[in-house]
Amino acid sequence: MRLFSLIVVLVLTTGTAFSDPLPSWNADEAKARILAFVDAVTDPKSEDYVTPAERIAVFDNDGTLWAEKPVYFQLLYALDRLKQKAEADPSILTSDTLKAAAAGDLEKVAESGEDGLLEIVMVSHSGLTVDEFQKDVAEWLETARHPTKQMAYTDMTYQPMLELLRHLRDNGFTTYIVSGGGLHFMRAFAEEAYGIPPEQVIGSTGKTRYEVVDGVPTILKDPGIAFVDDKAGKPVAIDSRIGRLPIFVGGNSDGDFQMLEWATSAEGPRLGVLVHHTDDQREWAYDRDSHVGKLERGLEEGPGRGWILIDMAKDWNRVWSGAAN
Amino acid sequence: MRLFSLIVVLVLTTGTAFSDPLPSWNADEAKARILAFVDAVTDPKSEDYVTPAERIAVFDNDGTLWAEKPVYFQLLYALDRLKQKAEADPSILTSDTLKAAAAGDLEKVAESGEDGLLEIVMVSHSGLTVDEFQKDVAEWLETARHPTKQMAYTDMTYQPMLELLRHLRDNGFTTYIVSGGGLHFMRAFAEEAYGIPPEQVIGSTGKTRYEVVDGVPTILKDPGIAFVDDKAGKPVAIDSRIGRLPIFVGGNSDGDFQMLEWATSAEGPRLGVLVHHTDDQREWAYDRDSHVGKLERGLEEGPGRGWILIDMAKDWNRVWSGAAN
Repeated sequence: MRLFSLIVVLVLTTGTAFSDPLPSWNADEAKARILAFVDAVTDPKSEDYVTPAERIAVFDNDGTLWAEKPVYFQLLYALDRLKQKAEADPSILTSDTLKAAAAGDLEKVAESGEDGLLEIVMVSHSGLTVDEFQKDVAEWLETARHPTKQMAYTDMTYQPMLELLRHLRDNGFTTYIVSGGGLHFMRAFAEEAYGIPPEQVIGSTGKTRYEVVDGVPTILKDPGIAFVDDKAGKPVAIDSRIGRLPIFVGGNSDGDFQMLEWATSAEGPRLGVLVHHTDDQREWAYDRDSHVGKLERGLEEGPGRGWILIDMAKDWNRVWSGAAN
Repeated sequence: MRLFSLIVVLVLTTGTAFSDPLPSWNADEAKARILAFVDAVTDPKSEDYVTPAERIAVFDNDGTLWAEKPVYFQLLYALDRLKQKAEADPSILTSDTLKAAAAGDLEKVAESGEDGLLEIVMVSHSGLTVDEFQKDVAEWLETARHPTKQMAYTDMTYQPMLELLRHLRDNGFTTYIVSGGGLHFMRAFAEEAYGIPPEQVIGSTGKTRYEVVDGVPTILKDPGIAFVDDKAGKPVAIDSRIGRLPIFVGGNSDGDFQMLEWATSAEGPRLGVLVHHTDDQREWAYDRDSHVGKLERGLEEGPGRGWILIDMAKDWNRVWSGAAN
C-alpha cells in the first residue's frame, strides 16, 4: 500500500507539474480566465472556436513583458550612447533636454516628456546602419546592469508573461509585440528573450534610408521619427502590419488603451489583460501618477469592459525570468 | 511484356505529372535554375541549406504576379470610384489631373506621372473605413472587366507565378508581396488570389487614423500618403516589416531594382528573378520605354548580377490563371 500511495503521489505531482502551462501564476481568477479563454478558442467543438490564422495575440513590451522603472530601458541605453557621442562631439547637444540627458539628469529628462524622450532616442540612435545598431544594443544588454536592481535587463522580463507567450504559441497563436519602444531596439533581443521573431515585432520607428555605401547595399538610421507606436497609433500599426484584429491583447498602461478597446469591442471571443504594477517588494507599485506606464483610464474602465487586471503582487508567485527572485 | 511496358509508361507519365511543381513553365534554363535553387536551400546536406525561418521570398505585384497594362489595375479602380464621387460632388476635382481622371482621359493621367497617380488614388480612396474600402475593392473585382482583354482582373494573375508561390511555400518559404500598390487594395484579393495572408502584404500606404465613431472603434482612411513602397522604399519596407533579408526576390521593373540589389548582394544563396514582358500575343511586350513597369537598368545589369530574366513568351507555356488562355 505504501508503494502504491507513493506511485499515486508521484503520478499526480508529475502530472500537475507537466500539465500546468502557467506555473508562475497563482491559482486564482486571472489565471483561470486566461486558461479558459485559450481552451475555448482552440476547441473545435466550442462556439468560441477561432481558426489558427485568426489567433493573433499582441503585447505591449515596456511594463508588460519586462520592467520599465525608473525609466524605459531603451532610454537608459540612449543616455549611455548619447554620453559617449557627446564626449566625442559636444556640438550634438543642441537643446537643454539633450544636455541634461548627457549629464545623466534623469529627473530633468523625465520632465521633458514624450517629446524629450524621442529627441534623445533619435539623436543617440542615428548615424548607424540598422545592423550596427542592433549589434550595439545586443552588446549593451550583455554588460549593462539596472541602476537599482543590479540585474541584467533581459533578466527583468516577467516569467509569468514568458509562460503566457509560450502557452499561446503552443495553442496555435501568433504572438506579436506592439510597443512604443523602438522597432530595431526590440528586435535586438525579442527573439532570444521572448521567442518573438523580427517579423512579429511592431514598434516606433525612426527614419531609415536605403543606400549603396562603398558598394554595399545598406539600411541607414537617420535622425527623425517615422512613426510613434503608442495610444491611437497602436491600432493603426496593427492594421498596417498585421491586417487582422487581435483576439488577445496584453498591456499595462493607458498607452495600450486604444488597442485593447479596438480589439475587445468587436464580436467574437476576445480577451484584454492589463498588468497592474502592485508589487513594491519584488518589482514596483505604480499606476495613476507614474510618468512611465501611467494607468488611469484602464483601471477605471477596464473591469467594466471585461478586461483582466493582473494584480502582480497577488497573481504572480514569481516575477523575474532571471535568477534573482 | 506489353502490359509491363504500359505500366512503366503510366508510372513515368503519372510520376512526371505529379512531380512537376511548375507545369506552366517550359523546361528551360529559367525553370531549371529556380528548381535547383529551391532544392539547394532546402536540402539539409547542401552547403546552401537555409533554415525555414530565413526562407523569405518577396514579390512585386503589378507586372510580376498579375498584369499592369494599360495602367495599374488599382488606377482603373480609382478612376471608377473618382468618377462616382465627382458626380456626387464635382468640387473634389481640384486639379487638372483629377479632372482628366474623372473624364477617363487615360493618356493625360499617364502624363501626370507618379505624383498624378498618387493624387488620384488618394482622393478616390479616402473617407472610408479600411473595412468598407476592402469590401468595395472586392466587389469591384467581382464585376469589373479589363478594358481590352475583357477578363476579370483576378483571372489576369500569372499561372506560372502562382505555381512558383505554391512551390516556395511547399518548401517552407514564407511568401510576401512587396509592391508599390496600395496595402489595403492588395489585401482585398491577395489571400484568395495568391494564398498570401494580410500580414504578408507590404505596400504603399495612405494615412489612416483610429477613432471611435458612434461608439464603434474604427480605422479610417485619410487623404495623404504615409509611405511609397517603390524603388529604395522597398528595402526600407522589408527591413521595417520583416527584419530579415529575403533569399528570393521576384520583380519586373526598375522599381524592383533596389530590393533585388539589396537581397542578392549579401552572402549566402540568393536568387533574383525579373519577369520580362516579351509576349505581345498572349500578354504585352514592353520594357525600356513603358510608362508602367519600365525595365531598363534591370535588363542591363540583371544578367551580370546573376538575376534570371524570365522571358514570358519563351519560358511560360501558359500565362493567365483564368480560363481564357
